[in-house]
Amino acid sequence: MEYYAAPIAKLIGEFEKLPGIGHKTAQRLAFHMLTLPEEKALEFAGAIVDAKRNIHFCPRCFNLTDLDLCPICSGYQRDQTVLCVVEEPRDILAMERTHEFKGLYHVLHGVISPQEQVGPDDIKIRELITRLSDAEVREVILATNPDIEGEATAIYLARLIKPFGIRTTRLAHGIPVGGNLEYADEITLAKSIEGRREL
Amino acid sequence: MEYYAAPIAKLIGEFEKLPGIGHKTAQRLAFHMLTLPEEKALEFAGAIVDAKRNIHFCPRCFNLTDLDLCPICSGYQRDQTVLCVVEEPRDILAMERTHEFKGLYHVLHGVISPQEQVGPDDIKIRELITRLSDAEVREVILATNPDIEGEATAIYLARLIKPFGIRTTRLAHGIPVGGNLEYADEITLAKSIEGRREL
Repeated sequence: MEYYAAPIAKLIGEFEKLPGIGHKTAQRLAFHMLTLPEEKALEFAGAIVDAKRNIHFCPRCFNLTDLDLCPICSGYQRDQTVLCVVEEPRDILAMERTHEFKGLYHVLHGVISPQEQVGPDDIKIRELITRLSDAEVREVILATNPDIEGEATAIYLARLIKPFGIRTTRLAHGIPVGGNLEYADEITLAKSIEGRREL
Repeated sequence: MEYYAAPIAKLIGEFEKLPGIGHKTAQRLAFHMLTLPEEKALEFAGAIVDAKRNIHFCPRCFNLTDLDLCPICSGYQRDQTVLCVVEEPRDILAMERTHEFKGLYHVLHGVISPQEQVGPDDIKIRELITRLSDAEVREVILATNPDIEGEATAIYLARLIKPFGIRTTRLAHGIPVGGNLEYADEITLAKSIEGRREL
């Protein structure tokens, strides 16, 4: 028997597709949405549409932005000679919260992972190399996550970057190994920037 | 400093308003939404709009439905003489999963709670009494949650219903006291229907 009206079942299904949201939570969220005043629910839906329509990659660093160039790339106070390579846009926020890093970023949008069939050409590596040939970069900090794929990607990148004569560093293992950059606390992450080591 | 573009910050904020979603989870969900193909994200937004536009209360039992009368109220196989009173529409699903109950429902949309300033007139009690005077109801099962407000509401309702000469029962305490109807497993909930007691 169908317990729910189709639009409710559909909404529960949509919530269930989100990462980390199970069936019970999806139900709760869908019913919460249905009890909201209409304008609040439409505001939520509108925020999704807005974000999808107005957010694109920064053409330089591939951060998400609604501007031509993201605020970090266009910030005149940022050190143009240091580049921090991260896996995802949300890692930039983690780095920025430390107030330790004043350079620019490069977002890979993934890591090399043979298991997931992600090769070097599937992430923004070619774009990184192009940036390095054009710009006056003196150091590249490889801030991929300290897990297997992140380490492998860092080693791969280090080999590509070395020929440019650019200093290549890796965040110090202040971050718990096997962990996730996004969940590191500010102090640990700050320490890992201080203690970064040559690769 | 603003780390996120306004549409991203707005989307994170909207996710954060959902019950049980903290800031980190809201960030993850928002970024997940941004990495989805556009049509998938718009489908999600559309499901919210659709549900809000097409779902309304069943005029008889106040379940959520997209039809004139909800499928349970219009189901000719349902026992019209037994009424199960629940707090929320999602409680109907929990009851239906037991396959033990063949009667009709009445959704209160809340419980009496002096602390939250919810009085008898703020929930669908008047509508319940109207239904009882009109219809051929022989039994009312009070299936509000077994917490303080739920118990108090059940006792309040029992007093109102008694003068009609209708049998008034309460779910047996197979459900853990202080718990929540929604999270009860089918067998426990089925047992609590079997063992319901006179109030």
